[in-house]
Amino acid sequence: MFSKEVYENRRQRLCEMLPDSFLLFVGNAEEPFNYASNTYSFRQDSTFLYLFGIDSPNYAATIDTATGNVTIYADDITLDDAIWTGELPSVSVIAALSGVTITKPSGALFDDVRGELKRRRVHFVPAYRATTVQKIAAMLGLQTEAVNTYVSEPLIKSLVTLRSTKEQCEIEELENYMRVGYDMHVSAMKMAREGNSEQVVRAIVDYISQRNGGHVSFPTICTIHGEILHNSPTTQVLKNGDLLLVDAGSESPLHYATDNTRTTPVGGHFTQQQREIYNIVLNANNAVAAAVRPGVFYRDMHLLAMRTIVDGLTQVGIMKGSIDDAVANGAYALFCPHGVGHMLGLDVHDMEGYSENYVGYDEEVQRSTQFGFSALRMARRLQPGFIVTDEPGIYFIPALIDKWQAEGICKDFINYEKLKTYRSFGGIRLEDDLLITPDGGRVLGQRIPINPDDVESIVCSK
Amino acid sequence: MFSKEVYENRRQRLCEMLPDSFLLFVGNAEEPFNYASNTYSFRQDSTFLYLFGIDSPNYAATIDTATGNVTIYADDITLDDAIWTGELPSVSVIAALSGVTITKPSGALFDDVRGELKRRRVHFVPAYRATTVQKIAAMLGLQTEAVNTYVSEPLIKSLVTLRSTKEQCEIEELENYMRVGYDMHVSAMKMAREGNSEQVVRAIVDYISQRNGGHVSFPTICTIHGEILHNSPTTQVLKNGDLLLVDAGSESPLHYATDNTRTTPVGGHFTQQQREIYNIVLNANNAVAAAVRPGVFYRDMHLLAMRTIVDGLTQVGIMKGSIDDAVANGAYALFCPHGVGHMLGLDVHDMEGYSENYVGYDEEVQRSTQFGFSALRMARRLQPGFIVTDEPGIYFIPALIDKWQAEGICKDFINYEKLKTYRSFGGIRLEDDLLITPDGGRVLGQRIPINPDDVESIVCSK
Repeated sequence: MFSKEVYENRRQRLCEMLPDSFLLFVGNAEEPFNYASNTYSFRQDSTFLYLFGIDSPNYAATIDTATGNVTIYADDITLDDAIWTGELPSVSVIAALSGVTITKPSGALFDDVRGELKRRRVHFVPAYRATTVQKIAAMLGLQTEAVNTYVSEPLIKSLVTLRSTKEQCEIEELENYMRVGYDMHVSAMKMAREGNSEQVVRAIVDYISQRNGGHVSFPTICTIHGEILHNSPTTQVLKNGDLLLVDAGSESPLHYATDNTRTTPVGGHFTQQQREIYNIVLNANNAVAAAVRPGVFYRDMHLLAMRTIVDGLTQVGIMKGSIDDAVANGAYALFCPHGVGHMLGLDVHDMEGYSENYVGYDEEVQRSTQFGFSALRMARRLQPGFIVTDEPGIYFIPALIDKWQAEGICKDFINYEKLKTYRSFGGIRLEDDLLITPDGGRVLGQRIPINPDDVESIVCSK
Repeated sequence: MFSKEVYENRRQRLCEMLPDSFLLFVGNAEEPFNYASNTYSFRQDSTFLYLFGIDSPNYAATIDTATGNVTIYADDITLDDAIWTGELPSVSVIAALSGVTITKPSGALFDDVRGELKRRRVHFVPAYRATTVQKIAAMLGLQTEAVNTYVSEPLIKSLVTLRSTKEQCEIEELENYMRVGYDMHVSAMKMAREGNSEQVVRAIVDYISQRNGGHVSFPTICTIHGEILHNSPTTQVLKNGDLLLVDAGSESPLHYATDNTRTTPVGGHFTQQQREIYNIVLNANNAVAAAVRPGVFYRDMHLLAMRTIVDGLTQVGIMKGSIDDAVANGAYALFCPHGVGHMLGLDVHDMEGYSENYVGYDEEVQRSTQFGFSALRMARRLQPGFIVTDEPGIYFIPALIDKWQAEGICKDFINYEKLKTYRSFGGIRLEDDLLITPDGGRVLGQRIPINPDDVESIVCSK
């Protein structure tokens, strides 16, 4: 945990933003794997971590912003439990680390919430786990399906405001931990050898996360089919000439997520064709890193990356015509059907549980409806302390190419004939994590090797 | 998947056991980690795996045992999905692998179940995930809290009968995969060196599971405090003289679980005290392995192991008095507060989701209420094809010792004075997986080194 002042300060600011309100926070429970007592690894809810820092299951909390009273609800373990789990600090000791002095047993929550319900609204954020939905439904007397229609927009907006701008302690926590992401990716590069399977490389990547104490930030993508954007690793064996795309990150001890992508030539040598496409993606990544600064819309960084991609693909003859028009018409989305990046923090897609539109969009910028552009998660103005991913990619997706060609989509901008020679190319994505500073931005931590010569020499080293 | 005949045969036998019934099976969904689209690794429900073999999320099925009709409910992926996940076989292709010819979209399940509800009972097994509870509640028009009060005892009992006796294909699947468990444990022994942390050893153990494609069967226990039965690994560093207890297993490609425990002296040399206790546990383990055979109550194997422990602890002076009386009074439970083993199969505690009493107890044998003995999961008569764990242990749990001594529990059988010299001993457990054969039983797969000299030499090897 951070010092208790960090959590006290966050809650204080929340109280100022939402005067005279009653706020309910339900922490996560253990989730069953294949029966009740065999559970997945515990992950606390990020909102709960942010406001209380308590990383144990079956906690809940309320804040009365009128009085400033904060109450933690949880149960101490019994001697019988202690035989199985060892002795643990009491709830009141844990709560005190977060600066909370009022604790009650879990059973008291129901009545407390019911009591408040008679007087005023109970504010809560969307619940993404069925266990949480059921708890809230029971407390508020709602049907489970209805729970998320009663979430509090004011609470969501306040939390987005607070969590978007990272405090110094958060930046340090994540920046210190970026070395683990670095190790994960450099290790994968070294494993990009003929004969290793996707599964084995992924196992090494995840092992490095785990030996540092961190759960992976998301299921590791480790594939020689980078064009399948969220491909699951298989027992498929790498062969020279393949491109190995690894998109992976690890959660720091306090659950801040790293998230990087590198694409490595198996065997250590890019073909001429691979190197050309790789450099276009790298140019797009670098262009964004050089252009970010407070006040800039991240939507415009998306368009900058996509313009760089269109420019590059035009130079190699895959695209054609006006670059301006190609970008305006979203022709790039055939090659990059996702957005250039997202916020990063306690969630790898930070705050996505609140709904993307609260996090990446606001009164100034609305989500596009254009294919590809509509997938952009983060579009609004950057501010100092924001952390965003910068992750352009170029993919050759046979099913999508066939669909666009059959329907004549963007045929003025795409050289479908030339494209045929890229049909089995795969995909490339290059992703860094950027901290927005008062006068620009910088890659968080030591940048994972990204220049093609550097990547080749790591594969070839032993 | 096994061949479709395996699943057809299982369903056919189920139909014969439950004539003229309507059976509902809800497969598992993806479970959110920290927001809806960031999920834990998918684990299919074991009942669904057993009857249909389909290892994909969001499947459901019904069986009408009157007509023999089996229907699979799931949705084909769209082109938009395929961009993210790659092209996948259609539901009808997947269902055919299981020998099922009737498929319907997910949305049809609700009406089909509602239609049946008007005519007859809908049989289902207990739901252990909140997502499944909510689906069943909606279909059957029940409150979520009430769902598991409507489960079908006839269906549970039929499935326990079927799943308890492993078929040849299941035995081969698990036996072939035992080499992964072997590697996990031997690797851990080799890591039992001063300076490695629990966390790093655990990461290696889990890595070996993952590189073989298997999720761990349960959260790996890897601790120098074996007396804390389900301790979570910490960053604590091993030092010579510690005992490292590793209880770990991996799921085979078809999700059969291995489950073994070994206890290794850090640095490679047991102290005299450690070796004495170790040999008592090993004797208990060996006694059970030598005594199992069809027709024997596993309850009696528990008592055989505990008698061996009492005998050994009496010889070293920790226990005293009549061995018969000490066993009858459960005095051993101070040192081994858990049962000697459980069924093993598609779940590491096989079928525990149905409730332990259906799996381990029957009309012939009721659960004891005595502390320790009451924790025994498997008590009934063994049959050929059963797979059970054999996992006696001896632990010195300070909190439990203090409680028993203060309350004078079993003071005629325990030498509390002598016990003081064992207070910081820790714990030892030794666990093998036994297949019951027509004329006895045998360890499944190559036995992981267990004799103390063998274990020492592995730690000292490089």
